[in-house]
Amino acid sequence: MTVSGNCHKIKSILTLLDLPFEWIEIDTRKGETKTPEFLKINPNGKIPVLQLADGTNIPESNAILYYLARDTEFFSKDLLEQTRILEWLFFEQYSHEPYVAVNRWLMKYAVDGRENSSVLENNRVKGNKAFAVMEDHLRDKNFFVGERLTIADIALYAYSHVAEDGGFSFEDFPNVRRWLENVRRFPKMISIQR
Amino acid sequence: MTVSGNCHKIKSILTLLDLPFEWIEIDTRKGETKTPEFLKINPNGKIPVLQLADGTNIPESNAILYYLARDTEFFSKDLLEQTRILEWLFFEQYSHEPYVAVNRWLMKYAVDGRENSSVLENNRVKGNKAFAVMEDHLRDKNFFVGERLTIADIALYAYSHVAEDGGFSFEDFPNVRRWLENVRRFPKMISIQR
Repeated sequence: MTVSGNCHKIKSILTLLDLPFEWIEIDTRKGETKTPEFLKINPNGKIPVLQLADGTNIPESNAILYYLARDTEFFSKDLLEQTRILEWLFFEQYSHEPYVAVNRWLMKYAVDGRENSSVLENNRVKGNKAFAVMEDHLRDKNFFVGERLTIADIALYAYSHVAEDGGFSFEDFPNVRRWLENVRRFPKMISIQR
Repeated sequence: MTVSGNCHKIKSILTLLDLPFEWIEIDTRKGETKTPEFLKINPNGKIPVLQLADGTNIPESNAILYYLARDTEFFSKDLLEQTRILEWLFFEQYSHEPYVAVNRWLMKYAVDGRENSSVLENNRVKGNKAFAVMEDHLRDKNFFVGERLTIADIALYAYSHVAEDGGFSFEDFPNVRRWLENVRRFPKMISIQR
């Protein structure tokens, strides 16, 4: 789905790697991830899914990033660097996306989403906690791991660069702002379509 | 923390690999993950953290599993199998742990946790959805990936094998029950201390 950050990650790495792909738009708001046909592709009923030419289906956005990037400059050959990259991918899915992405969804796309004030407020606190962890980490860094763009940056950029849609502000996070600009300016990096 | 499934994952892989380790008990209920000293170890304030002999700290349970298992029989050398293992690790952290682990926490350890009836009910529905996805996947399999024990099983086993503490039942999930038994019987596999 075009507006999804999890789907944006996949379009980003495919574009950075100059890999040809066909984009099939699936709209969660129309229930298109819960149809019997889609559940055959991903029984967990979520997008994105990478479909290979031989029919293999790969769900989970951050697993897809690994699959496409493992042998490229956007991953690493060093075990500790690989682990650091995965550490940030798990951070993104557990401590960032459930708050930053969900508030954007509620405020911008969901019907009556802005009425869930206690959920919005809880997510705002926890999302800001995630940005504070990122701010601290980026104090002396231009990118998350190894001072170059990796899939850790691509995963965290997806919902961070549109977090203002969910009511987040980067006023108190100058290092995150600087990092967002580093990623944005990277050749062939793309922004989400809104 | 002894009762934590995320910590149990690490004790499991260290035991399976016969690696010597020292266990430092940190109790989240006493605020021990939020002290200035602990936040220097993991700024995200979460356990487990793997501390290497040289002082390197590695947080995120599933990243630690990767670090310890990458070059062993519990991971894989094949890109697609590696990706499938990571797919289940991300599934565990996003679609399983937030519901299955949290209800166990609320029902067994948290003060007044059983009073959050709407949270418990929402988590029960979503946790059962995760078990349904696992049930479907295990229809014709003994383990999650490659028909042998990998870190995908170790991660999913951690909170699944004590899910009954959180009010979950496996009555409708015979394949999950069979898989739990396969993992439990694996030589040197350990159960969580309760």
